[in-house]
Amino acid sequence: MAENTITLAHGSGGRAMSQLIEDLFRCAFDNPWLNQGNDCAVMDSPPGRLVMATDSHVITPLFFPGGDIGSLAVHGTLNDVAMSGGKPISLSVAFILEEGFPLADLERIVRSMADAARQAGVPVVTGDTKVVPRGQADGVYITTTGLGRVSEGVNIAGSRARPGDAILVSGTLGDHGVAILSLRENLQFQTTLESDTAALHELVASMLAAVPDIHCLRDPTRGGLSCCLYELAQQSGVGMIIEEAQLPVREAVAGACELLGLDPLNVANEGKLVAICPGHQAQALLAALHHHPLGREAAIIGQVVEDAHGLVRLKTRYGGMRHVEWLAGEALPRIC
Amino acid sequence: MAENTITLAHGSGGRAMSQLIEDLFRCAFDNPWLNQGNDCAVMDSPPGRLVMATDSHVITPLFFPGGDIGSLAVHGTLNDVAMSGGKPISLSVAFILEEGFPLADLERIVRSMADAARQAGVPVVTGDTKVVPRGQADGVYITTTGLGRVSEGVNIAGSRARPGDAILVSGTLGDHGVAILSLRENLQFQTTLESDTAALHELVASMLAAVPDIHCLRDPTRGGLSCCLYELAQQSGVGMIIEEAQLPVREAVAGACELLGLDPLNVANEGKLVAICPGHQAQALLAALHHHPLGREAAIIGQVVEDAHGLVRLKTRYGGMRHVEWLAGEALPRIC
Repeated sequence: MAENTITLAHGSGGRAMSQLIEDLFRCAFDNPWLNQGNDCAVMDSPPGRLVMATDSHVITPLFFPGGDIGSLAVHGTLNDVAMSGGKPISLSVAFILEEGFPLADLERIVRSMADAARQAGVPVVTGDTKVVPRGQADGVYITTTGLGRVSEGVNIAGSRARPGDAILVSGTLGDHGVAILSLRENLQFQTTLESDTAALHELVASMLAAVPDIHCLRDPTRGGLSCCLYELAQQSGVGMIIEEAQLPVREAVAGACELLGLDPLNVANEGKLVAICPGHQAQALLAALHHHPLGREAAIIGQVVEDAHGLVRLKTRYGGMRHVEWLAGEALPRIC
Repeated sequence: MAENTITLAHGSGGRAMSQLIEDLFRCAFDNPWLNQGNDCAVMDSPPGRLVMATDSHVITPLFFPGGDIGSLAVHGTLNDVAMSGGKPISLSVAFILEEGFPLADLERIVRSMADAARQAGVPVVTGDTKVVPRGQADGVYITTTGLGRVSEGVNIAGSRARPGDAILVSGTLGDHGVAILSLRENLQFQTTLESDTAALHELVASMLAAVPDIHCLRDPTRGGLSCCLYELAQQSGVGMIIEEAQLPVREAVAGACELLGLDPLNVANEGKLVAICPGHQAQALLAALHHHPLGREAAIIGQVVEDAHGLVRLKTRYGGMRHVEWLAGEALPRIC
C-alpha cells in the first residue's frame, strides 16, 4: 500500500527521491536540459529581451473536465509569458506533495504536464520535489516558472491602454470557473461544461503578426474579466466601458452562474485573453483572432475612455450604465 | 483580528490581492521589473548561456537561528544557480499562504527575502500569491526560481568528476539541519547553533577566478554530504573516497548529532558547497576558498577514484574503510 503512495522519503534528497526523479520526471519530460541531471539547467540565452513569469497552482479538484492541475500548471505560466508578447522557451516545475498522495495520480498529472508542454513546444528543463507530512498540504501543489523571448518591436504592457483603444476578448467567458464550481457543487447540466485551459502563445503570435502594435494583453484568470480590466485601467490611468450585449458567454455558463449566484464577469478563465489595441486596428485584430482555433468566438467588447478614477463601466443590454464591481472578497478559493 | 491575518480574499485576484501586492511585495522588493506591474517581467537577455533553477521551501519552523524561510528561499535558489558557475540575475517568488496566517509574520518573511535578495544583488522581478483554506497548508510555502548567466569557458556539471580529482567542501557540515532539529526537539546547548544559510555565488566567482576548470559544484542540502556525493558519483560513473579526519564538523554539531542519533554526513547544509577539481589544482582552489569569508573552514576531504558501481567510501579516523550510506528513508522532513 505504502509503495503506491508518496512517502516522506520521496522528499529526502536520498535514494527514493533520486528514483522518483529518474523513473517518473525524467522519463516523462525527457529533454537534454533536464537530462543534464543537475539542480539547474544551462541553455543558450535568446537574443533580445527575456520574459519571466511564475504561478503556483492549488486547484481542487485535481482532475476536471477539460484538464487537470498538470495541464493547467503548464498553460497558466505559458500564458503569463505569452501576455508579454513573448515566445516561451522553457519551463521549470516545483512540486509540493502531501505524504500519502497516490503515485498513480502523480503519474497521471506528470504525464498530462509533459503532454501539455510537448504540445506547446516548450521543454520542462529543471524542477524540484518537496514532500510534507500528511495534513500539511492537500494532495499536490505545483509551481511553474516560464521563460520566453520577446521580439524586437513588441512592446506590450498593462500601462499602455489609451483612450480610443478597443477592448477585445478571445472567446467565451467563465468556462473554467463554472466547470470547476459545477463539479464541486455536483451540479448536473445537459451539456458538459469544460474548462477552457489552453496555451495561448501561438494565438498571440498570430495576433502580433496581424497587429504588431497591440498595447495590452492579459489573461483574465482568478477574478475574471472584471479584475483583469480593473488592473489594466488602474495601471494605465484610464477608464473602460464594456457592452453587455457583446460579451460572449455560453448559455450553459450563464445558466450555471444564475444558479450559483455568480457573475460571469468575475469567474476565472484559463484559455482566454483580453487584448487592447488602437481603435482603428480592432477589426484587423478581430479577424486574426477569428482565424485561429482558440479565437473563433472572439469579440470586440468595449473601449478605453478617459477617466482619472480608473473605473470600469458596463453598458447593459437595456441601455443603462453601471459600474462593474471590483471583487473585494473571495467566492471561489482554489480555482487555479 | 481577521484584518491582521491572511484571508481567502488575498488570493482572489481582486482588490485585496492587489492591495497586498502593492503595500507589501512591491514596497519590499521595489525594482523596475516588478514595478512594471504585469504578470511577468521583461528584462534584457544576457549574452552567452542562461541557467535556470527552482526550489520550493517548506521548512518548519519558519523562523530559526541564522535565518527564516524567506532568506532560505532566496539563498537556496541562488545557490542552485551558482552551482552551474552562473552569476544570478533575477528571481521570481511564488507564495502559497494558509488562510489565517498572521500578516505580521508574512511581512517579516518578505522583508527578510528582500534583504537577502538585495545583499545578493539580485532583484525579485515577478511573483504570484495563492491562498488555500485553513488546514490545507502549514503557514506559508515559498517557491523561488532563479535565472543566471554562465560565462564563456565555464563548464561545470555533475558528470565531470574524473579519477584523480580532489573533493573539497567549503566549510563545516550539518549546521543547518542540526540548528533546525535542535529547535524542534527543544534541545539546549551552551553555544547557539545557527543555520549556515547564505548565498554562495560570490564565493563561486572567486573560486572560478582562481581555478577556471572546476569540474563539479553542488550544494549538499537535503540528504547532506552523503547524498550529494552519491549523486555526483552516479552521474560521473566514478567512486569517491573521503577521509573522516578531514571532515569539518563543529563540536556542537557533532554533539547534537550524537544525541539525536544522526550522522553529520546526512544532515542538510544551506550555505556550503562541494567542489571537485583536478587534483593538481586542489591547493589553489583551497586557497581561494580560505580567502573568502564563506570558505574560511574549507577543506580537501577526499578524492575521486575509479569505480563502476559509483560507491562513496569513508576512510575512518582509525584507518578502516566503510561504505557511506546512501540515505533511503527520511529522518528530517521539512528541513528546507
